[in-house]
Amino acid sequence: MLDRDIIQNRGFRNVNGGFELRLRNPNYRGIAASLLDGIDVVVDGEKWEYDVPRWTVQGRTFSLAELRESTDARWQLDETVTVFVPKPGGLAPGVHDVDVAIYLRRPYFPPFVSRSVFRASAQRVIVPDTGAFHYGVSLYSYSGDMYTSMSLEDACAEISDMGATGIEILGEGNIPSYPAPAPQWIDHWHDLLNRYGLTATNYGSWVDTAMWLERDLTALEAADQLKLDMRLAARLGFSSIRPKFGVVDGDLTPHPVWREAVSRVLDLAQELDLVICPEIHSPTPINHPVTQGYLDFIESTGTRHFKLLIDTGIFQTAPVDDGHEGIEGKKRPAFLEPLAVPMSDLAQVLPHTHFLQTKFFEISDSLVDLHVPWPDIVRTLREHGWNGWLSSEYEGRREPGRGLDQVRRQHALLRSLEAGA
Amino acid sequence: MLDRDIIQNRGFRNVNGGFELRLRNPNYRGIAASLLDGIDVVVDGEKWEYDVPRWTVQGRTFSLAELRESTDARWQLDETVTVFVPKPGGLAPGVHDVDVAIYLRRPYFPPFVSRSVFRASAQRVIVPDTGAFHYGVSLYSYSGDMYTSMSLEDACAEISDMGATGIEILGEGNIPSYPAPAPQWIDHWHDLLNRYGLTATNYGSWVDTAMWLERDLTALEAADQLKLDMRLAARLGFSSIRPKFGVVDGDLTPHPVWREAVSRVLDLAQELDLVICPEIHSPTPINHPVTQGYLDFIESTGTRHFKLLIDTGIFQTAPVDDGHEGIEGKKRPAFLEPLAVPMSDLAQVLPHTHFLQTKFFEISDSLVDLHVPWPDIVRTLREHGWNGWLSSEYEGRREPGRGLDQVRRQHALLRSLEAGA
Repeated sequence: MLDRDIIQNRGFRNVNGGFELRLRNPNYRGIAASLLDGIDVVVDGEKWEYDVPRWTVQGRTFSLAELRESTDARWQLDETVTVFVPKPGGLAPGVHDVDVAIYLRRPYFPPFVSRSVFRASAQRVIVPDTGAFHYGVSLYSYSGDMYTSMSLEDACAEISDMGATGIEILGEGNIPSYPAPAPQWIDHWHDLLNRYGLTATNYGSWVDTAMWLERDLTALEAADQLKLDMRLAARLGFSSIRPKFGVVDGDLTPHPVWREAVSRVLDLAQELDLVICPEIHSPTPINHPVTQGYLDFIESTGTRHFKLLIDTGIFQTAPVDDGHEGIEGKKRPAFLEPLAVPMSDLAQVLPHTHFLQTKFFEISDSLVDLHVPWPDIVRTLREHGWNGWLSSEYEGRREPGRGLDQVRRQHALLRSLEAGA
Repeated sequence: MLDRDIIQNRGFRNVNGGFELRLRNPNYRGIAASLLDGIDVVVDGEKWEYDVPRWTVQGRTFSLAELRESTDARWQLDETVTVFVPKPGGLAPGVHDVDVAIYLRRPYFPPFVSRSVFRASAQRVIVPDTGAFHYGVSLYSYSGDMYTSMSLEDACAEISDMGATGIEILGEGNIPSYPAPAPQWIDHWHDLLNRYGLTATNYGSWVDTAMWLERDLTALEAADQLKLDMRLAARLGFSSIRPKFGVVDGDLTPHPVWREAVSRVLDLAQELDLVICPEIHSPTPINHPVTQGYLDFIESTGTRHFKLLIDTGIFQTAPVDDGHEGIEGKKRPAFLEPLAVPMSDLAQVLPHTHFLQTKFFEISDSLVDLHVPWPDIVRTLREHGWNGWLSSEYEGRREPGRGLDQVRRQHALLRSLEAGA
């Protein structure tokens, strides 16, 4: 699917001598390229007149004069065109206000109105080239958009377009016919990874200990659930799996079967070369019996296949007041309060950490995160030689398309910090 | 793609003993059906408690008690479930206010909040069974939604779901790689028609006489364009084609090449069994030299392959003030003024009319069209034994999904009028 906005998220980038933007057709029909009549482009108040940009239509590049004389290029409704705008040095990394006026001649309208103007505006993000860290995106970021306006392939294209190379999924969420996807789907998955240059990073799973009202899962049943997801994750090429066990209290203390269940699958984890990662998630900090219990388990078993996954929501320094789907009755759930875990705690557990879910809620037009202290986090990661993934997990408001824009902002922010660190 | 709204457009219908609604999963993950914990349904203020509705999940039907004990059914993110609500006699045709509260248990949340409630509201339309007329939909109605949140298959499913049987397309608009679609796409098209029980009705085409700035198309070139679209329309199974010639004035007087160009392709129309239909479109009424010119052509050639297509915008009795994409600078383009062509004119040209595009802009919650006098039109069509298509052409505001809802309203309105006429 294309973005609803005429100015697409994908394809907004710096290129040699200027920048490019990608557009879908604003009219209700496809047209011969000879009917294109120019485009005004305004970025952050700087204007390029209608006859300046160059157009790439169906893979061929034209000046406006060449378009007008063309005989066999078309702009179809299901295709985008790329517009090149000259600007030596390109645009700065970050968020830009983009306005366009696209001119089309429509011969079926009376001559005095046949030159039609279609205006569109959007904020679009220039993401700097990737640097020292490994950047990925969790499909959770696109909740609400996935399956309503984005296919899995659209998500892969989106991630790849911003120069990220990792994809994190939710097993019971992004795998059609979970837990038994068709072999054709598995082939399709590997094709997508290959085509978009993506690495399968972390696979989110659940052990729903309270699956039934009458009784809890046994440790054996919990281990079976783990095995099922681990085998599926391995077939899809993931290197880690995050099982979310049912919890028994407000501190997110996992159901007591967790220890026996995980013990029973450590051999399989070794065989499949998977790391099992419990998630350290607000309101549970690092310095807490739950997290310490996981560290004790690592120490007592000596395993290399059980490590922490840290959700950066625990570093939040300001409350989030946008609520959370499915939770009612209080102003703010506990996990949206600022837990403000200190950087020294992060530094301490980094050696036992496999994966960072870079959870966030809102990044402003000037690339300031309203809740999470990225400068501190990036500095700490640099100082301690972090070489694992940073996987974007947008968890803010779910207006259509907001996740796409916000993830791009996060990548622009993190890469800018990293470059400046 | 699924509708973004949790309560889907498709699947809202009366069934034996009540009505059904279809839902997409409101959470960010798929879940075992045992974690479903009921649904409150409120329609127009009448409430059904959480344990009353029956659920159909992955093709199997459950009471709430059966769901809770289930072990192998799931509600995936890319799948819908159907909820049956008992109500003898079902719901009245028309627009209904639907509110639901979906309860899910989420074991990974602390026990005191693990029973989560997801609320959703929508206006949804009960469309009566189809009657004497042949009902279809033009994909133009879904402009903006097509290719951004709806595939061609989604559109076919949508049309079929409301009991319509005709599909009208725009050739240069809905055919990928127009004018030379891949053979696989043509097979896909015929598969879709077959699967969704649809008939290809009218194919919209253009003859862009002002395709180049330097010179107009010749009659020969115009005829070639017609031939190309006619052959493509016939391969796709259409019975008529509406070529929109370029116009030379505000009365939509077609470029003078039209007569020679059409004359040159009448034999081909006979060979392909196609009717060529010029569109009678506001601001040009029936009693006007342009329309009379078409009628003269029919008479002088004696052809059965050239007939009128009437766009019901010409019967508009109130102005439309929502504007039109691509047109700026005046309050209201001429074709959005009320032309109020009398019913006697419609009756007079019906014998020469092949197709009705039931153009409209807005139908209210109480099924009143704000601009087009459907009671008069339907009565006239009944009185004169109309047996061609009524093909919905929504041309109102383009908020996401608005066309889907409005087309359903039009079908509910027209079929109610027809049944009462």
